[in-house]
Amino acid sequence: MLLLCMLFYNHKRYFMDTSSTILAIGTQSAESPLHQMHIERRTVRPQDVKIEILYCGICHSDLHQARNEWKGTTYPCVPGHEIVGRVVEVGAGVNYFAVGDLAAVGCMVDSCRECESCREGLEQYCENGATYTYNSPDLHLPTQTYGGYSESIVVDEQYVLRVPANLDLAGAAPLLCAGITTYSPMKHWNVGPGKKIGIIGIGGLGHMAVKLAKAMGATVVMITTSSSKVSDGLRLGADEVILSTDEDQMLSHAHSMHLILDCVSADHDINAYMTLLKRDGSLVLVGLPEDPLQIAPFSVVGGRKSFSGSSIGGIKETQEMLDFCGKHDITSEIELIHAKDINNAYERLLRGDVKYRFVIDMATLKG
Amino acid sequence: MLLLCMLFYNHKRYFMDTSSTILAIGTQSAESPLHQMHIERRTVRPQDVKIEILYCGICHSDLHQARNEWKGTTYPCVPGHEIVGRVVEVGAGVNYFAVGDLAAVGCMVDSCRECESCREGLEQYCENGATYTYNSPDLHLPTQTYGGYSESIVVDEQYVLRVPANLDLAGAAPLLCAGITTYSPMKHWNVGPGKKIGIIGIGGLGHMAVKLAKAMGATVVMITTSSSKVSDGLRLGADEVILSTDEDQMLSHAHSMHLILDCVSADHDINAYMTLLKRDGSLVLVGLPEDPLQIAPFSVVGGRKSFSGSSIGGIKETQEMLDFCGKHDITSEIELIHAKDINNAYERLLRGDVKYRFVIDMATLKG
Repeated sequence: MLLLCMLFYNHKRYFMDTSSTILAIGTQSAESPLHQMHIERRTVRPQDVKIEILYCGICHSDLHQARNEWKGTTYPCVPGHEIVGRVVEVGAGVNYFAVGDLAAVGCMVDSCRECESCREGLEQYCENGATYTYNSPDLHLPTQTYGGYSESIVVDEQYVLRVPANLDLAGAAPLLCAGITTYSPMKHWNVGPGKKIGIIGIGGLGHMAVKLAKAMGATVVMITTSSSKVSDGLRLGADEVILSTDEDQMLSHAHSMHLILDCVSADHDINAYMTLLKRDGSLVLVGLPEDPLQIAPFSVVGGRKSFSGSSIGGIKETQEMLDFCGKHDITSEIELIHAKDINNAYERLLRGDVKYRFVIDMATLKG
Repeated sequence: MLLLCMLFYNHKRYFMDTSSTILAIGTQSAESPLHQMHIERRTVRPQDVKIEILYCGICHSDLHQARNEWKGTTYPCVPGHEIVGRVVEVGAGVNYFAVGDLAAVGCMVDSCRECESCREGLEQYCENGATYTYNSPDLHLPTQTYGGYSESIVVDEQYVLRVPANLDLAGAAPLLCAGITTYSPMKHWNVGPGKKIGIIGIGGLGHMAVKLAKAMGATVVMITTSSSKVSDGLRLGADEVILSTDEDQMLSHAHSMHLILDCVSADHDINAYMTLLKRDGSLVLVGLPEDPLQIAPFSVVGGRKSFSGSSIGGIKETQEMLDFCGKHDITSEIELIHAKDINNAYERLLRGDVKYRFVIDMATLKG
């Protein structure tokens, strides 16, 4: 174990934290495969919780970031923001967690706590920039933040979530990103009984959206390009599955949906889906295609419709989502992998060859 | 005067109306200039009001339709849906209008009256298709509807508006389209005191939006590409005018606006404007550019923003808008033209050479 003592100023960050060295999986460049490496985690401060990571989901954002596809990646890069584990140490001022508790960390580990969005519990829209779980400037160490592909993580308890005890822990990990990213817009746009919601794309996000929307009491229509996914969509709880390539099926649902959640990360024709919306309906993008999408003016003007977006969810809402999943016994469908298989998992992810989320069994990190 | 008697079935339309021949200005094809012609108006039915047209505004839609730029134009085409005039005849069952009253007609002359949208007073989104003032199948004569570039019009009183007596009649005509098209979304998206609204484009719609937003009590920022329009923007009532071509001015307004009303009909970069919106803000398109607009996923996902649209307004809301304009003495800035100058006006409209709306003095129709 290496102890470091740092003292310098950098963008208002004032570093006097000590740290210890831990094992992680990351990469040194956009072109290199992921591999085992050592990173520093800060020593527990008074408000901090240290979590031994048991499971970490693999989100498509991890791959984008590791390969610098959104630009701005700082290396070394250790991805992972679907983290579930067990508390192994708490600071003297910690109120809500004790050693031995289950705990989870999602996409953020801090934010300014002062802006309008933070005060409203919408830290994901922090006006001064939230501290993301990886690739943000670390507030306490002079590095970027490192994510959950690692032995442990130290996080201020205000940004740590509780995991309902009845949930399968590995299946719960993806709730921290895929779960909240779909839960938050559905709550914001009032999904519930009497509402018909369309969900485009049945991958990591889409399959969670189907489960959550159904548990919220909505009528759920899954929209897919792939006839091979029809039976799976029904098994997951969709009331109906329609093929977007079948014009008759699309026409039979025209002007019928209150909300469409668009979970597709590749380029696709938004206008075809906009016709499914009722007047005043919104199509909400939660995937992040690389290029701009083309929206025809008539798609929004006719029927006062909206093409909208939503990003993850706030801390309070993430807890609410976890509790909701506990109550309804909802977890992600996962494929559990060994840490050494991460690069293969990335390749399969690129091919869409996963039902529906890879989760790393972090106990395998040490061999 | 020619009386016709028609009796045949066509798309559930059952024609037994008599009609009379009147003078109008229209065109026989997309390529021909507009010229004087004769059209038929139905004889007044029990619920009808016959209006002698005094003024008719020239909307860019008139030009699009006359030249078949949206396809689907049926010829002959008589445009015009910003109609102000005086009642000259009423049917036996008319309750709200009397001969001699001022009256107005906007973009619709009928709708199904039964669907959800019609029942909610949102006839512009009629699920069975509203009957537009021109180029819709006429419900009573075996032709398309003919608009306000004509001597008179016969309309069911439910679709006729009252004009506040204090308003300049020629300046009031554009309220029927340019006014309601900007008023309706501002009411829907809660423009009022404490709200900062951006208005893109200062033409027929934009200049009305500035006046209306200011009267609603909002802080109004006009956004233009043209430095020559800055002083005019301030004169119209904008609190501030910014040049979208000036990066510093745009940056200084980043994340500050609750709503942006986009009144531009040409292609333009929506993403640059989306950055001006606060969290949960909407950019609402009321112009109708020909081609799809490119929206970057991050423009909507970051800040849960919406790219939305809105189309004219319902009949009840149009009356509310006219009364609001009466109360605040709001009319359009117009250039009054002689009927014979219509083709020249269209050419000037294409060059953006009008401040800010042409209105035809219909008294000039007969020579």
